[in-house]
Amino acid sequence: MSLLVVGTVAFDAIETPFGKTDKIIGGAATYATLAASYFTDKINLLSVIGNDFPESAIQQFADYEISTEGLQIKSDAKTFFWSGKYHNDMNTRDTLATELNVLADFDPLVPDSYQDCEFLMLGNLMPSVQRKVIERLWIRPKFIVMDTMNFWMDIAMEELVQTIALVDILVINDAEARQLSGEYSLVRAAQKILNLGPKYLIIKKGEHGALLFNKQQVFFAPALPLEDVFDPTGAGDTFAGAFIGHLAATRDVSFENLKRAIIFGSAMASFCVEKFGTERIVGLTEEEVQERVQAFIDLVQFDISLV
Amino acid sequence: MSLLVVGTVAFDAIETPFGKTDKIIGGAATYATLAASYFTDKINLLSVIGNDFPESAIQQFADYEISTEGLQIKSDAKTFFWSGKYHNDMNTRDTLATELNVLADFDPLVPDSYQDCEFLMLGNLMPSVQRKVIERLWIRPKFIVMDTMNFWMDIAMEELVQTIALVDILVINDAEARQLSGEYSLVRAAQKILNLGPKYLIIKKGEHGALLFNKQQVFFAPALPLEDVFDPTGAGDTFAGAFIGHLAATRDVSFENLKRAIIFGSAMASFCVEKFGTERIVGLTEEEVQERVQAFIDLVQFDISLV
Repeated sequence: MSLLVVGTVAFDAIETPFGKTDKIIGGAATYATLAASYFTDKINLLSVIGNDFPESAIQQFADYEISTEGLQIKSDAKTFFWSGKYHNDMNTRDTLATELNVLADFDPLVPDSYQDCEFLMLGNLMPSVQRKVIERLWIRPKFIVMDTMNFWMDIAMEELVQTIALVDILVINDAEARQLSGEYSLVRAAQKILNLGPKYLIIKKGEHGALLFNKQQVFFAPALPLEDVFDPTGAGDTFAGAFIGHLAATRDVSFENLKRAIIFGSAMASFCVEKFGTERIVGLTEEEVQERVQAFIDLVQFDISLV
Repeated sequence: MSLLVVGTVAFDAIETPFGKTDKIIGGAATYATLAASYFTDKINLLSVIGNDFPESAIQQFADYEISTEGLQIKSDAKTFFWSGKYHNDMNTRDTLATELNVLADFDPLVPDSYQDCEFLMLGNLMPSVQRKVIERLWIRPKFIVMDTMNFWMDIAMEELVQTIALVDILVINDAEARQLSGEYSLVRAAQKILNLGPKYLIIKKGEHGALLFNKQQVFFAPALPLEDVFDPTGAGDTFAGAFIGHLAATRDVSFENLKRAIIFGSAMASFCVEKFGTERIVGLTEEEVQERVQAFIDLVQFDISLV
């Protein structure tokens, strides 16, 4: 039984008020698999790269025991490239460049060795590509997590809604939840989105934390107040990767365990934003991760006895 | 031993996307004393009103056993009036009118019967007026809570900083914390503000909850996700009133108890925004309050055992 992560492996060039990078390794599946690797093993990566992607970066996946059998290498094309510049508030950013390259005609072929997939994470991609992965799995996974973004709501809403209906949990941010539902209130938005099919919904609010909904319950996890947010790139993917990593490790998809998974996701995301790219989520010790989770416990724990 | 609440008693005219009111009873001290009355008794109100303020509204304070001996009635002037219109996001508003009236030359006279003050809440007022109250108390209260706003930072920063140095806890919102400190990061802002003198700082983030800081610790309390925020007016004063009401009832100003006080404050504020003005925080049953506090416990409670 394994965890399959589908998503981009990319080059990013990032500018924040703290500095800028040249092309560095990024992409949703990169962040998500690295984050998941702190919680579970048997992680399979499904993605596509071009002829310009460094061998050392592929080796890094192997170092974290992430299988790259499903990582297609296109010898005649370049790796997906994204470039963005964050504003001073770090909550908004301008996209400076998006070069789809190998992503333009990405066909997500699932190797036979990946067919024991029990937990599936669909990183942000064209909804039809995400759906193809579900269809190509011989057995429907126990739990499917799906990320998406406003771009697909603008240009492929029908396909998007069809794909959302197939998953167990959708993970989007507050602006996306409002756009998808047409509701300003996140509580109303959540109920409308849950009516599309998924059992659960996570609404990420960046520095303001994250909400987990099912039709009856709601749980809130804060973000850790940090002195500085250095680079938010990949924080959401890191969150989702740690989230499904914990679920895959425990094989428990109860609401109570989803709450724990969100805390682990938030803890890993709080590391991610402390440095550029994946720098801070590589090479963490178990002790560092546990200390960070303890900081979340301390942040929200209180003791009220009602009569 | 008593709780003294100083602040405005006012007329408000409010417009939100859900409707608008004529002149209704408002003011920081109105919300704060009503909210505090659910947690403690012996509440003394210090404020000023004009000849246009209805007897029935004064009677309401008496109904809640809030002493109005320190409520000055100016026969030759009108009550403070504020009018505002909230935008669709409910987080921003335009002030349509501010008529200071009786507030313009408010001299906060402290009746002798108020001199057993153990807990003092200074609602938003000119900082020099807030300071006068502290100076006029024969014995320094055990715990002083102070609210303020950006307006005083613009026009009376020096006086404001002098008054902040005299209190135990400052309660402001995130924009005010940034303006007061000159820091964007709320963690950095908090440390700078604590260096001004207060032992504690609460930064309110509206629908995103509230942070409690001292120099070593931080605690986060969420706001309850609501289907609709009907009218945010007075939510911050309701929060502060319930907060100090719980402290006064327990006479415990430890960090652990401040955390509980913030949850009670958040619970009462979540009622406040459900209807116009004070409508929803009048006549609540003990059971309703306890159910709401339980909703906060359910919202953030999780169970992670670290090895």
